[in-house]
Amino acid sequence: MTSKGPVKVGIIGSRFEGDIHAASLQMVPDAAEVVAIASPTPGNAQKLADRYSIARVFTDYRQMLAEKDIEMVTITAPNNLHAQMTVDIANAGKHVVCEKPLCMTMEEADLMIDTCRQKGVLLMYAEELFFTPKYVKAKEMADQGAFGKVYRVKQAEKHFGPHADWFWDVEESGGGVFMDMGCHGIAFCYWFLGRPKIETVYCQMATHVHAGKTKGEDDSVCVLEFAGGAVGLVENSWARRGGMEDRIEVYGEGGVTYADLHMGNALPTYSEYGYGYAVEKAPTTKGWTYPVFDELWNYGFPQEMRHFARCVRGKAEPRATGEDGRVVQEVLNAGYHSARTGQKVALPYRPKGVRVPIDLWLKGETKP
Amino acid sequence: MTSKGPVKVGIIGSRFEGDIHAASLQMVPDAAEVVAIASPTPGNAQKLADRYSIARVFTDYRQMLAEKDIEMVTITAPNNLHAQMTVDIANAGKHVVCEKPLCMTMEEADLMIDTCRQKGVLLMYAEELFFTPKYVKAKEMADQGAFGKVYRVKQAEKHFGPHADWFWDVEESGGGVFMDMGCHGIAFCYWFLGRPKIETVYCQMATHVHAGKTKGEDDSVCVLEFAGGAVGLVENSWARRGGMEDRIEVYGEGGVTYADLHMGNALPTYSEYGYGYAVEKAPTTKGWTYPVFDELWNYGFPQEMRHFARCVRGKAEPRATGEDGRVVQEVLNAGYHSARTGQKVALPYRPKGVRVPIDLWLKGETKP
Amino acid sequence: MTSKGPVKVGIIGSRFEGDIHAASLQMVPDAAEVVAIASPTPGNAQKLADRYSIARVFTDYRQMLAEKDIEMVTITAPNNLHAQMTVDIANAGKHVVCEKPLCMTMEEADLMIDTCRQKGVLLMYAEELFFTPKYVKAKEMADQGAFGKVYRVKQAEKHFGPHADWFWDVEESGGGVFMDMGCHGIAFCYWFLGRPKIETVYCQMATHVHAGKTKGEDDSVCVLEFAGGAVGLVENSWARRGGMEDRIEVYGEGGVTYADLHMGNALPTYSEYGYGYAVEKAPTTKGWTYPVFDELWNYGFPQEMRHFARCVRGKAEPRATGEDGRVVQEVLNAGYHSARTGQKVALPYRPKGVRVPIDLWLKGETKP
Amino acid sequence: MTSKGPVKVGIIGSRFEGDIHAASLQMVPDAAEVVAIASPTPGNAQKLADRYSIARVFTDYRQMLAEKDIEMVTITAPNNLHAQMTVDIANAGKHVVCEKPLCMTMEEADLMIDTCRQKGVLLMYAEELFFTPKYVKAKEMADQGAFGKVYRVKQAEKHFGPHADWFWDVEESGGGVFMDMGCHGIAFCYWFLGRPKIETVYCQMATHVHAGKTKGEDDSVCVLEFAGGAVGLVENSWARRGGMEDRIEVYGEGGVTYADLHMGNALPTYSEYGYGYAVEKAPTTKGWTYPVFDELWNYGFPQEMRHFARCVRGKAEPRATGEDGRVVQEVLNAGYHSARTGQKVALPYRPKGVRVPIDLWLKGETKP
Repeated sequence: MTSKGPVKVGIIGSRFEGDIHAASLQMVPDAAEVVAIASPTPGNAQKLADRYSIARVFTDYRQMLAEKDIEMVTITAPNNLHAQMTVDIANAGKHVVCEKPLCMTMEEADLMIDTCRQKGVLLMYAEELFFTPKYVKAKEMADQGAFGKVYRVKQAEKHFGPHADWFWDVEESGGGVFMDMGCHGIAFCYWFLGRPKIETVYCQMATHVHAGKTKGEDDSVCVLEFAGGAVGLVENSWARRGGMEDRIEVYGEGGVTYADLHMGNALPTYSEYGYGYAVEKAPTTKGWTYPVFDELWNYGFPQEMRHFARCVRGKAEPRATGEDGRVVQEVLNAGYHSARTGQKVALPYRPKGVRVPIDLWLKGETKP
Repeated sequence: MTSKGPVKVGIIGSRFEGDIHAASLQMVPDAAEVVAIASPTPGNAQKLADRYSIARVFTDYRQMLAEKDIEMVTITAPNNLHAQMTVDIANAGKHVVCEKPLCMTMEEADLMIDTCRQKGVLLMYAEELFFTPKYVKAKEMADQGAFGKVYRVKQAEKHFGPHADWFWDVEESGGGVFMDMGCHGIAFCYWFLGRPKIETVYCQMATHVHAGKTKGEDDSVCVLEFAGGAVGLVENSWARRGGMEDRIEVYGEGGVTYADLHMGNALPTYSEYGYGYAVEKAPTTKGWTYPVFDELWNYGFPQEMRHFARCVRGKAEPRATGEDGRVVQEVLNAGYHSARTGQKVALPYRPKGVRVPIDLWLKGETKP
Repeated sequence: MTSKGPVKVGIIGSRFEGDIHAASLQMVPDAAEVVAIASPTPGNAQKLADRYSIARVFTDYRQMLAEKDIEMVTITAPNNLHAQMTVDIANAGKHVVCEKPLCMTMEEADLMIDTCRQKGVLLMYAEELFFTPKYVKAKEMADQGAFGKVYRVKQAEKHFGPHADWFWDVEESGGGVFMDMGCHGIAFCYWFLGRPKIETVYCQMATHVHAGKTKGEDDSVCVLEFAGGAVGLVENSWARRGGMEDRIEVYGEGGVTYADLHMGNALPTYSEYGYGYAVEKAPTTKGWTYPVFDELWNYGFPQEMRHFARCVRGKAEPRATGEDGRVVQEVLNAGYHSARTGQKVALPYRPKGVRVPIDLWLKGETKP
Repeated sequence: MTSKGPVKVGIIGSRFEGDIHAASLQMVPDAAEVVAIASPTPGNAQKLADRYSIARVFTDYRQMLAEKDIEMVTITAPNNLHAQMTVDIANAGKHVVCEKPLCMTMEEADLMIDTCRQKGVLLMYAEELFFTPKYVKAKEMADQGAFGKVYRVKQAEKHFGPHADWFWDVEESGGGVFMDMGCHGIAFCYWFLGRPKIETVYCQMATHVHAGKTKGEDDSVCVLEFAGGAVGLVENSWARRGGMEDRIEVYGEGGVTYADLHMGNALPTYSEYGYGYAVEKAPTTKGWTYPVFDELWNYGFPQEMRHFARCVRGKAEPRATGEDGRVVQEVLNAGYHSARTGQKVALPYRPKGVRVPIDLWLKGETKP
């Protein structure tokens, strides 16, 4: 394994998120280089490899882990596979970048963190909102005192349903939109406020639109109470029409800021004829649309990948870690519990015998 | 009492809201005419009377009620006075327009409704959001099927604290911002969705900024679950800097709409020198500001007053009634209860022995 | 003729603009009442009369002028008929409200003004931008000193082509979009700046899209230099897709303001199914749209009509007069001249022998 | 001179624009490395060198040109020095990146282009708008046919005066805001439309606010007519309060798009206390502001610098060339001429004996 030059990266997964990783890593050639991709669906992997000129393709990620030069492996597989993959990568002595949410259960989170620590590799949690430049600007202003004491932070992420079928299957995803995107908002509020202890979690959720496809919730709202008194409000939906929405609001006793990644950055556009691409999950490019520019950059993916590669090189400390992912995981579990009982849940919350988080909503906690 | 021509109106109260009533009524001269004003602070009342050329001024509203020609009386006094005033007005045989929230307790609400019914006068509930033209447009689109089944409605109203000191005193106001402005959002969601039964209420609140001034909460978020599955989200704050904010969001399986009464209508303006007026509760007119135009019209006050006058003339049925106010009152009570217990409250909710709603948060329900 | 109560109004024309007049007048019942409508297309007039419960319908406006009780007549007929109609109305002793642009030639403008003066009736010029509440707010701020000395004013009005076929025929309209909507921007800048002398006019125009339908220009930009140094910029188009656009920008040494009547007031809306109405000339109500609310009010038509009725009752001085229309007419002529020569035209500009203004662009000035 | 690895760059100038070059180059370490800086003000240069860890500092750029390893030199000096510097750099065998506008006269433009060609070095014109990601997106949509035939393109760039004193001195700058920023809009329209021949130029300009500081115009509007019928509209101001404004509008027969780099990307923010930085030339960070994020990236400077470095490595053809700069220079000259005569100027336009472009407005063309 070399210790300088661009970090050599392998990607697990070849669908939507695998493509984002490949594209983002290619945008930071000074920091990283994708040398391999592994995906059980051979055609998919090869197509992605061709698109990004990636030399090595594997159908079994374990084979990829045998490649000596690979230093960092990113996981974009379904949520229920994250823990085992992380353990395998760590055991192969490679650094881990794991997509959100971290895993399915608190036991898995502990195992992932412990294994990586024991093996001396980094467990980096791919929460790109910590790198989203518009949101980073909001945090900079907050940290500079622009808003005085911040008492409320909101994040909302909404669209009309996930980009891959496995999300509909709660055995693979662990839950619906709260699991898929609530993890973003929880992480965001926690990070924005400086990682205060989360004291309580309340969650309301329902399956309004996609009940024919999934047992998972397609709309949720979550209220977090933090030590020190700040409140987080996290809204998510797979039932919002018209393309992606990702927004924050920050309220302090001395000020307020709003940031909208999509309509708030877009070029309001009318087209009779349509054009190439508007925005993630846009239904059309005809009529009025809100196309975005430099989509990956504006989400922060390339910046995130450069940062993780720099961490591998020892030039930075991970800004998003397995520990962050575990905090989020606890809130996800507590949120599903709360949605069932209609009561806010005090943390720490370590339910026993959880198989998939959504069961805490659908079935209730397994009493030992 | 005449039965045609503009309805003759008396106003109780001479401060912020009294001024709004006087100004709004003057904008619809075909429908109504303010002939008297009553306020215990003589100077205030006279000033308002002078400003709007109102002939008769009273320091005791009971004296005003003795004026034979007055047909409709509007109440803009502190919340704790609404019930007694309504009873007195009804007993004087005059129609009642009562500002929001309707009153302090469910018992008061019942008394107000019953008395008006017995006396054959209308009890009209001054929820101007039912008349706000931008929000009315949103409802029209929803009713035309633009969004298919609506599953989520949000309303937020925020600024940096009330316009009169009595709001800080929970004995007069009954509570903080949830009482003051949460009533708007509750009424809005209920009306927008077509008045379905409200099944549960969850509320989170805190006093983040103004604890030195009041025991009342200055920030709240409330989740309503409606029969049929729709969800309401109501956000309110007295701790939001920069002037008024009043916004809605509507989500249906077939679409979405957003309406912002302030920044979404304003003229983004930069001024080195300042100018006359920007917007309710704006801290300054220098630098960048968001001045609004036709403020009263854009809130819907003149339209509301014309409608109420038409109801008095028998030309329309009241769009906002004492019954609406009572539904809101029940949710307010349930919300304060929920904020204390951290649990959503199922309706119907009729707590015993409530004196002021906020006690349900601060002290808990009085057990008989 | 009565001298109090609502002013009795007759409308000439029964299409788009006639409907606007009828609807707007009905919104100010304290000030005016439409009692008659005249239109050569009998079906049209009757339909409009039915829609607004207008009692009397005429196919010849001259017959309507014989009605004794009518006090004010509004003209919404094609531009080439304005002058003769105005003369006839004045000769019938009734007050005139003439839609924009005032007429076709300077000679006509003089005749209209002189005849009305001689007959002692008001000639009111229906420039609704003087009443548009958002623009009025901008002017109020300017007049309060918000921007210091204003050095540049812009107005743009654009859509994808006129609402009636006669606009395409330059014999009836006198020109294309500059004639149709440039008149708004010219009047706006002139009024906003306090009616300083207009010193020069430069205009660039072309027929980009609708050459198959009209000889008239469908896109224009006009630069006005005012005495005192301020500059006006007027942009117009019949070739802008996606519905109406009407915007202003004001620049002063001490500040700036922006006002957008459409996208800047709208409810950003996405609908799979569509709904009743979005905005004037919107191509669809499906997908993303920018519906407006209270459209007539936000343009200022009802306020304009109430004002004109009050002028008839002697309660106000006309805010928009035949003299304003004549100033605009001179600039329109000068603009067409300039578009041909590529040179700014110094005012006063009184070309001889003009038949229709657009000839000054297409053919050049007739030399005597 | 090496032929691989990051391109070694020297910067001439150490003020506002020199800082931008240094910062932008540092953001693309895979492509370029700043190794030297030259500036006649020694303190300035050293400070910049310290800020960006630049090893070599020169007070005379000619000394820097003697450094063998430097491959590319960027010019951020006053406009009147561009030509001589370019010639010197080319003679030293190094590639040139010249800030906008290219130079003062057409003769200089010719000399710069010819010298670089003869010496076999690239003359790259630092028009960052060709790299501004939001504008690049607009062009991509246009090129994909979103708008059909584009008939009008607008660009506006405005603020309250330049960032260095030499701009006020027309001997150094060559003119006012039209020279300083009009060059952006001219280049933008030309590039956006695919570099059609520019047929005519009309310009209106004035010194509204800063007459005490400069003979240069502080506000201008320019109309360009292109072969094929499209029209460009370029607006510039040094008299616009409230921070930077940079916007485009694109109108085609099939659609329209709007892009605003500042208010259209910003986080609307209110702060009682202020914060670190809002946006270029913002007057304050208190009250309402429009802070931007990733400012350099959103202008396109790092992308531009990476592109130029890649051109030096032979991996790309320059997207912005000396020829582009010369086209702009011709329009600048023609614009000043037009502003004097009030007549549009047909290109080609090669005035004789021009010393500084603004003389064509202030003094008129020197007749031989």
